[in-house]
Amino acid sequence: MTNRITSLFGIKYPVVQAGMIWCSGWRLASAVSNAGGLGLIGAGSMDPAVLAEHIRKCKAATLEPFGINVPLLYPDVDEIFSIIIRENVNIVFTSAGNPLKWTGFLHDKGIKVVHVVANTKAALKCSEARVDAIVAEGFEAGGHNGKEETTTMTLIPMICDAVSLPIIAAGGIATGRQMLAAIALGAEGVQIGTRFIASKESSAHLSFKQKIVDAKDGDTFLQFKRIVPVRLLKNKFSENARMLEESGASAGQIGELLGKGRARLGMFEGDMDEGELEAGQVSALIKEIKPAGEIVNEIIREYNEALERVHKVYKVRKVES
Amino acid sequence: MTNRITSLFGIKYPVVQAGMIWCSGWRLASAVSNAGGLGLIGAGSMDPAVLAEHIRKCKAATLEPFGINVPLLYPDVDEIFSIIIRENVNIVFTSAGNPLKWTGFLHDKGIKVVHVVANTKAALKCSEARVDAIVAEGFEAGGHNGKEETTTMTLIPMICDAVSLPIIAAGGIATGRQMLAAIALGAEGVQIGTRFIASKESSAHLSFKQKIVDAKDGDTFLQFKRIVPVRLLKNKFSENARMLEESGASAGQIGELLGKGRARLGMFEGDMDEGELEAGQVSALIKEIKPAGEIVNEIIREYNEALERVHKVYKVRKVES
Repeated sequence: MTNRITSLFGIKYPVVQAGMIWCSGWRLASAVSNAGGLGLIGAGSMDPAVLAEHIRKCKAATLEPFGINVPLLYPDVDEIFSIIIRENVNIVFTSAGNPLKWTGFLHDKGIKVVHVVANTKAALKCSEARVDAIVAEGFEAGGHNGKEETTTMTLIPMICDAVSLPIIAAGGIATGRQMLAAIALGAEGVQIGTRFIASKESSAHLSFKQKIVDAKDGDTFLQFKRIVPVRLLKNKFSENARMLEESGASAGQIGELLGKGRARLGMFEGDMDEGELEAGQVSALIKEIKPAGEIVNEIIREYNEALERVHKVYKVRKVES
Repeated sequence: MTNRITSLFGIKYPVVQAGMIWCSGWRLASAVSNAGGLGLIGAGSMDPAVLAEHIRKCKAATLEPFGINVPLLYPDVDEIFSIIIRENVNIVFTSAGNPLKWTGFLHDKGIKVVHVVANTKAALKCSEARVDAIVAEGFEAGGHNGKEETTTMTLIPMICDAVSLPIIAAGGIATGRQMLAAIALGAEGVQIGTRFIASKESSAHLSFKQKIVDAKDGDTFLQFKRIVPVRLLKNKFSENARMLEESGASAGQIGELLGKGRARLGMFEGDMDEGELEAGQVSALIKEIKPAGEIVNEIIREYNEALERVHKVYKVRKVES
């Protein structure tokens, strides 16, 4: 399977493991890259020195390409990019900011740049910034999310119509069937987050991994719409936040409840009551914690099976016509 | 293309036109059925006598199968089913109620029953009620919606895993690419609403059709979550409702603003400021009002093109392996 995404990164399968805060360090990224996908280290929860260590360990653990996810609103973003350049990492996924600000600078250093969007307007900005590819992320995705609430099923054709750049679909993808659906919609790759949180190599707390495995449909919810929308697994904290929001509280009051360090508390330290647990709707489809490489293989196997099934429909049609 | 859905209804293409209030009378349903899909008359906005007239006109306009959508919470539901039986219509789509209540009765009269769900629990109830097929409808769909907010990309694999009945995917489907994505996810058919509102034959007011054509991403919003969630095109009325909801208003206060006849006012009478305008996120992908038969043909043509594209990927893989 060769397309603009596999060619861009030099990878076997167009499967990107999302660079997520508190979950995706060098162990997860290298495991995914070794299995033929593209692993990303999530810089959003790392001090610059910690990131440098993760990059070095990732290099030692894989000879395959890997990248770094950098939220552009990160306070230490200059230092983060200095480290990435110094350590010769040549793939960066940027999110939560303006792609016009950094793309040219990174390109000059020989770094490939992919930017994450949730609407057409941002995709057009990516085109103007000449990024190398776009991650288009739907409403069902875990973590930070767009205000438009556009779902992957609607977003992908919309973005494919708006720009000519290769598109990586994100949100609602954990299985090979969903990967094939994304390809049918016009994407050339997929970015998968939640499925990899519940992997052996992710640095998420075991209680958080298990909560994903236990989740049923309706167990995640898009919250904090008056600040920055974020999809969370429902727990005591999120229910308190929801009640506060529904009572008509201001952004300030909601921010006060949210406080600092909630994501670390939940996702990394394992407080399932008071922590913030970023995860997508696909949690309901995840039944087991597995090694990341096995997850990649399973997705590709199921993708091929779904392709065979769709291909049979195709053959039936050809015979009929 | 033959599968359990085309066989169940005796139709050429597994494309169902949703039975929508104020939009889908005999003209639209017969046009879709004549084009090889399954047209549905939406009984939800019709008095029993009006429905009887639509059924008779639909029979005169097509020899192909068509059906009726009946919201089970409709006050005249007994009378509606009497008319359907008397007029010998043998396909019914039920929604907004318990499938256990009516399915056996309708089966005894030789009527095929399809029920609409938005979560696994309701799908299991459909299985218990022995309906003939399930419409699984995602968050992106126009009109009434599930409390779980599960999107089509996540919902379809979830429902396919939970039950063995044939699944018709709904929500976020207006094009052939999206139809192929639904098939990849495991559905055997699609139900399409909004794309058919913006058709020549729909009974929607021309201003409403035009507002769908003009819509961009983010122009619909899921409202009235504290009463019954419903996806609407944003307008003056919906913005007032949103502000009221965000201020922490009770269900009673919101119900008072909503009042009676808002959907008729907007969708049928064309009041774009004060009317309730039920439409899906795919509004942003719809660029033109067209004859319904042309829409069916366009969807099938694009489905086949997408299948060819996916098939090429398949061939590449086969050569590689």
